[in-house]
Amino acid sequence: MSFIERVFAAVRRLRNPVVVGIDPRPEELPPGFLDRFPGTAVGVADALRRFGGEVLDVVAPLVPAVKFQSAFYEAYGPAGVAALHASVEDARARGLIAIVDGKRNDIGSTAEAYARAYLGKVPVGGRYEPTWSADALTVNPYLGSDGILPFVRVAARENRGIFVLVRTSNPSAGEFQDLVSEGKPLYRHVADRLRQWASPHVGESGYSHVGAVVGATYPGQLAELRSELPGIPLLVPGYGSQGGTSRDVAAAFDGDGLGALINNSRGITGAHDRSPYRERFAGRWQAAVEQAVLDMIDDLAANTPAGRLRDAGTPAPV
Amino acid sequence: MSFIERVFAAVRRLRNPVVVGIDPRPEELPPGFLDRFPGTAVGVADALRRFGGEVLDVVAPLVPAVKFQSAFYEAYGPAGVAALHASVEDARARGLIAIVDGKRNDIGSTAEAYARAYLGKVPVGGRYEPTWSADALTVNPYLGSDGILPFVRVAARENRGIFVLVRTSNPSAGEFQDLVSEGKPLYRHVADRLRQWASPHVGESGYSHVGAVVGATYPGQLAELRSELPGIPLLVPGYGSQGGTSRDVAAAFDGDGLGALINNSRGITGAHDRSPYRERFAGRWQAAVEQAVLDMIDDLAANTPAGRLRDAGTPAPV
Repeated sequence: MSFIERVFAAVRRLRNPVVVGIDPRPEELPPGFLDRFPGTAVGVADALRRFGGEVLDVVAPLVPAVKFQSAFYEAYGPAGVAALHASVEDARARGLIAIVDGKRNDIGSTAEAYARAYLGKVPVGGRYEPTWSADALTVNPYLGSDGILPFVRVAARENRGIFVLVRTSNPSAGEFQDLVSEGKPLYRHVADRLRQWASPHVGESGYSHVGAVVGATYPGQLAELRSELPGIPLLVPGYGSQGGTSRDVAAAFDGDGLGALINNSRGITGAHDRSPYRERFAGRWQAAVEQAVLDMIDDLAANTPAGRLRDAGTPAPV
Repeated sequence: MSFIERVFAAVRRLRNPVVVGIDPRPEELPPGFLDRFPGTAVGVADALRRFGGEVLDVVAPLVPAVKFQSAFYEAYGPAGVAALHASVEDARARGLIAIVDGKRNDIGSTAEAYARAYLGKVPVGGRYEPTWSADALTVNPYLGSDGILPFVRVAARENRGIFVLVRTSNPSAGEFQDLVSEGKPLYRHVADRLRQWASPHVGESGYSHVGAVVGATYPGQLAELRSELPGIPLLVPGYGSQGGTSRDVAAAFDGDGLGALINNSRGITGAHDRSPYRERFAGRWQAAVEQAVLDMIDDLAANTPAGRLRDAGTPAPV
């Protein structure tokens, strides 16, 4: 099954478009969590994998996908990267779509090496073997087509996906992305190319495996890009702790409640440390994670077209 | 000593500005090299480290710096990343400046995590410990200041460097980088921000630890950016197999032959497979690497201001 068909099947089955972001900052782990591990880089890496695994146990029955932030694993070197690698496997073993948020970018055969690494197979002893087996990878478009098409091709061949940064959620996103050239801001130029890159790959679902990252914190641009990018699934960060609301992300969806995945990282994995979860679940951080996910699902169902996923009758078979 | 002072000391000591790029594609290793290792991902990763180490042995007496392309190591997962980590240590143990070409990018505390990972220290058991200890990292500017300043700050604190992609060497570089807004192409907007980011950090050498990546394949833009970016060291890929010549990169230097580092990857590490080295050194790939480095050094000395490094009298003490 193609990447986007797998995503939509999971979204329909779970009846929500939530991506739980796992960005494990050691200083934000639940109180006492790190103390169970040796005070070494390998110990921290083991803690990151364990924390991710416990989050996966809570969220796997609830949401279609998770997104791992590579930086927090790379921070602990090869041991940290091994923890990320194992975490991707842990997620897939639980039936979750596993997105690696690595924002990789390079050109030609180097871009292809990244694509093969994360999404495809690499040469080993006269054969080709998968290395990472992530379902999708985020990529950065600054280098142009040479930097994106190798990812598009490898992902197509391997039934995986990519999400290209178009309009990011951070305060300075506009410094370059909003510069207007030929009557359009840069992010619209990127969006136009993205539509070209994706168009040969749009399947029966009406969507391709080539997605866009568009931040929840700029709802006007989110609406504009949903309209300008038919066939492009949107991965939307910025809901929750970055300030984006369910009303802000409503325009990211199509009329069936599909076409968008909404990510929440700290708002879920750090729920134990903020109201009302802190008071309600004192110390039971997994229960706080579960309730924060359920609340986000309800919020999106109430205020966005994702609510239609609940009306769709019998869920698709698992 | 600051990053840029260390770079200039090494350039003056070796009397050349050459960066040997180590981009180990398994299929381009010398004939028979891979056969010495098990046909597994760990075996290939070990081969990559061994190959890099043998290259380092040849080039450490000759050039100031090496640049590792992260993609080719990440392709082999945690074992590949361990090979990269060890290779960075191998390079530094031989006195080389070690640049990790990872083109990392993210925002806020995630960008800081990448910066701490590669250039600084990360929290471990109540202390801070270095993980990667690279001398410099390449970064991608698409996300704006939020995505760059954490790297600038961490690198300043740790006496490390960064090189921000400004105008890349690939054929499609111009798709976005040349889009003209407010009378200037995007890459000039990036350059203007870069000058702001770097200016508080310009030291006695006249340069900062905040550099720019500018491709050799667009010599007009290289000259323009050298002039527009005083105080910014340029890392110039594209010499050699991508088609850039010594005359193309001449404008990257200041009048003292400083201010630019010229990278060559395949042209050196793949010399065994191209004329005239293939015929001359049949099978002795290390000798081909050495001769290709010496030829590049001579070429730059003859045709660029880097030649003045040879006229500078007694080299600085080692």
